[in-house]
Amino acid sequence: MRSYSSFRPELWLVFGFLSLIAAGALALWSIGILKSMPIDFLDALFTSTSAVCVTGLSTIDIGRDLPTASQVVLLMLIQIGGLGVMTATTAFAVVLGARISIKGRLIWAGSMGLDTPQGAVKLLIRVFVISLFAEALMSVPLFLGFLQTEPVGRAAYMAVFHSISAFCNAGFSPYSNSLVDFSSNFLVMIPITLLIVVGGMGFPVVDDVIMCVKLRRWRPSPYSRVVLKSTFWLIVLGSLLLFLSEFNGAMRGMPFSEKVMNAVFHSVTPRTAGFNSLPMTSLSGLSLVFTVFLMWVGASPSSTGGGVKTTTLAVLWASCVSEVRGLGEVRLEGRSVDSRLQRKALTVSMLYTLAIFIAVCLLTVFEPLPTSTLIFEAFSAMGTVGLSLGITSKLTPEGKLILILLMYWGRVGIVTFMYSLFRRHVPGRVLLPGINMPIG
Amino acid sequence: MRSYSSFRPELWLVFGFLSLIAAGALALWSIGILKSMPIDFLDALFTSTSAVCVTGLSTIDIGRDLPTASQVVLLMLIQIGGLGVMTATTAFAVVLGARISIKGRLIWAGSMGLDTPQGAVKLLIRVFVISLFAEALMSVPLFLGFLQTEPVGRAAYMAVFHSISAFCNAGFSPYSNSLVDFSSNFLVMIPITLLIVVGGMGFPVVDDVIMCVKLRRWRPSPYSRVVLKSTFWLIVLGSLLLFLSEFNGAMRGMPFSEKVMNAVFHSVTPRTAGFNSLPMTSLSGLSLVFTVFLMWVGASPSSTGGGVKTTTLAVLWASCVSEVRGLGEVRLEGRSVDSRLQRKALTVSMLYTLAIFIAVCLLTVFEPLPTSTLIFEAFSAMGTVGLSLGITSKLTPEGKLILILLMYWGRVGIVTFMYSLFRRHVPGRVLLPGINMPIG
Ligand SMILES: [K+]
Ligand SMILES: [K+]
Repeated sequence: MRSYSSFRPELWLVFGFLSLIAAGALALWSIGILKSMPIDFLDALFTSTSAVCVTGLSTIDIGRDLPTASQVVLLMLIQIGGLGVMTATTAFAVVLGARISIKGRLIWAGSMGLDTPQGAVKLLIRVFVISLFAEALMSVPLFLGFLQTEPVGRAAYMAVFHSISAFCNAGFSPYSNSLVDFSSNFLVMIPITLLIVVGGMGFPVVDDVIMCVKLRRWRPSPYSRVVLKSTFWLIVLGSLLLFLSEFNGAMRGMPFSEKVMNAVFHSVTPRTAGFNSLPMTSLSGLSLVFTVFLMWVGASPSSTGGGVKTTTLAVLWASCVSEVRGLGEVRLEGRSVDSRLQRKALTVSMLYTLAIFIAVCLLTVFEPLPTSTLIFEAFSAMGTVGLSLGITSKLTPEGKLILILLMYWGRVGIVTFMYSLFRRHVPGRVLLPGINMPIG
Repeated sequence: MRSYSSFRPELWLVFGFLSLIAAGALALWSIGILKSMPIDFLDALFTSTSAVCVTGLSTIDIGRDLPTASQVVLLMLIQIGGLGVMTATTAFAVVLGARISIKGRLIWAGSMGLDTPQGAVKLLIRVFVISLFAEALMSVPLFLGFLQTEPVGRAAYMAVFHSISAFCNAGFSPYSNSLVDFSSNFLVMIPITLLIVVGGMGFPVVDDVIMCVKLRRWRPSPYSRVVLKSTFWLIVLGSLLLFLSEFNGAMRGMPFSEKVMNAVFHSVTPRTAGFNSLPMTSLSGLSLVFTVFLMWVGASPSSTGGGVKTTTLAVLWASCVSEVRGLGEVRLEGRSVDSRLQRKALTVSMLYTLAIFIAVCLLTVFEPLPTSTLIFEAFSAMGTVGLSLGITSKLTPEGKLILILLMYWGRVGIVTFMYSLFRRHVPGRVLLPGINMPIG
């Protein structure tokens, strides 16, 4: 059997994102000049990268410094970046009625964590239906929520913008203080929380869950169970910790229900949406340290989010448990995790963290800012999160370039990027029964 | 063949260190009362833990707050802790002429990273000869160095104290500002650097190198080569980085040779001796971030130092390289690293980092100090390093207890500790040709 790996799909990803970033930067820069609201090219490049890599960090105030046309371009970059360059281009071909080649299907299937191209086109169509359906559905309560403080036209625009930005885990908001003004507006907070979680679970899992409901088969695949369980526990653990940590801190004076809502929101948003309903600088040291951990973990594979991914965390955790208990094999959801998957998880987490470490070292050289804020910013950029302790607009050009590189690596995947440079051998596939799922 | 693992040597380690810490705390506390220089029992416990675990962090000023008798007890705790509780007790038995049981030899051999007890007693004797020889030899230049500023008696005492403290990677110094006053005294700096490096390489490697020289066999074992090469590169990389980073910073105004000396010293001491010749608070953000990395890596297995160990780093690095290049197996020094060793390396690095993470979270709750200084302190305690940004004496009782636990876990090994709690199965040994060396 010919494996999809021999097509080197990583090259498509690496160059696809690169082209889109370049095109976006040129578009934002030119529109700025045309509309007499010029921005620096480096800022255009930063904003384009941040949009395509669905990060949300910004060196400019996008609600104030960008003309509406640029904001629409930004939204398109987010939508394409969120769904993934390959998903988007393949979808484009489907829409045009083109026959998609086996090669194209294999590449796309590989990027979605599928082993075979069977059902790839069908899954692709469902991806689009799910995305648009979720975004459209949640726009309704969001519209009602924004209507409480905005006129009709602007409320509709904000609903659509935040719906797309949340589902794509982009975290961009035309409001310069993100969602701080809406921390008590449940019609805004709840839909955005739901969109982030569903967008971050990854299309194959969302699809599997929908199929389970449709077919009344109440047991998702092992891969889906790993994602669902780790997502559940990370949200519960994070909410609890933030609730306790900010009860008399950043959330002092809020009613109980609002405290719960904001704790859940700030547990969900670092993985890796990047909205905030509490001012980031008002959070305690404990909350910030735990936020960094959540940003490091990130979302699930084949999703709109970044990070090392929940499946990586699950494999690392299962490996540690097996080792400590002295088991011969690593077990996860009643399956054995083969050594190749363990090595991939190890590589993803190590290279990911190494990239952040090197970036922090470089940032301390160029930026006269507190090291802790630089560490936070680097985790945020690499995880394509977009949370910041308020230093993004103060960065030097060198600092901006470092963050651009981190956002790109974070979205493409540092290991995927390394494959594109160094992978010369395709390891022979081992066909033992074992759990199979994407890592990183 | 019966494996030594069935004896559960980890229990000996876990309880051996625990008993020694308790005995030391009681001794320091009672001597303090007897000599009318009483100290708090928690401080006695902290100091005893810090000595047995060869850390060097201190909540008190040991040169000022401890009577000489307590300082001698401290030195004994350091020497026993540095050589390892089991080495020390077994050696005690040898000295008394007792016949050492096969079981005793197996346990000790296991703790030294040997597979079989063959040659264990001989190695043990060599350990003592090497330790005492190295400490005695380097006391001579140290004595001459301290003589430049101290009277004869005190210079001799300081030479012996620092010789033992350096070889055992303990980092304790009766001088309250460590070696800052001796940054230009090469007769102090060079012997201490050499003692730290040799003490941190691990007895099996030192022994192997000596054997190589004796037998004119110029190729050490693969395990020794891994340790020697990673030690070499970490020192070179660290020295270069610190030299560049502090050239116009903490080392401004020094002559060139002194700059080189102090850069090398501050590259060596975080792994994991803990002396400092430059004030830690004068170092740049870059130097501190890199120091944290060096503290995380630490020394080599079966040595007097802590950290995740150089061999762990080497396996992690080799795994990443193999994965990125798409190789079927992980290669290190022309050998293949089996998946069990990879899993051990992964577990050591993950649990080690997780323990630090949880400790930092707890510290932020109890300590009203900057989070970055708490992170530095936690890495220092877990790595049994002893460097501090000056907050150790300001800690609350809760903070002290957290650091005590970290130092203990760091010295015993977090994975060893977990084995003692959870290991019920002994994995069947795989007898494939492969590199074999201790991890963590
Ligand atoms: K984001
Ligand atoms: K130390």
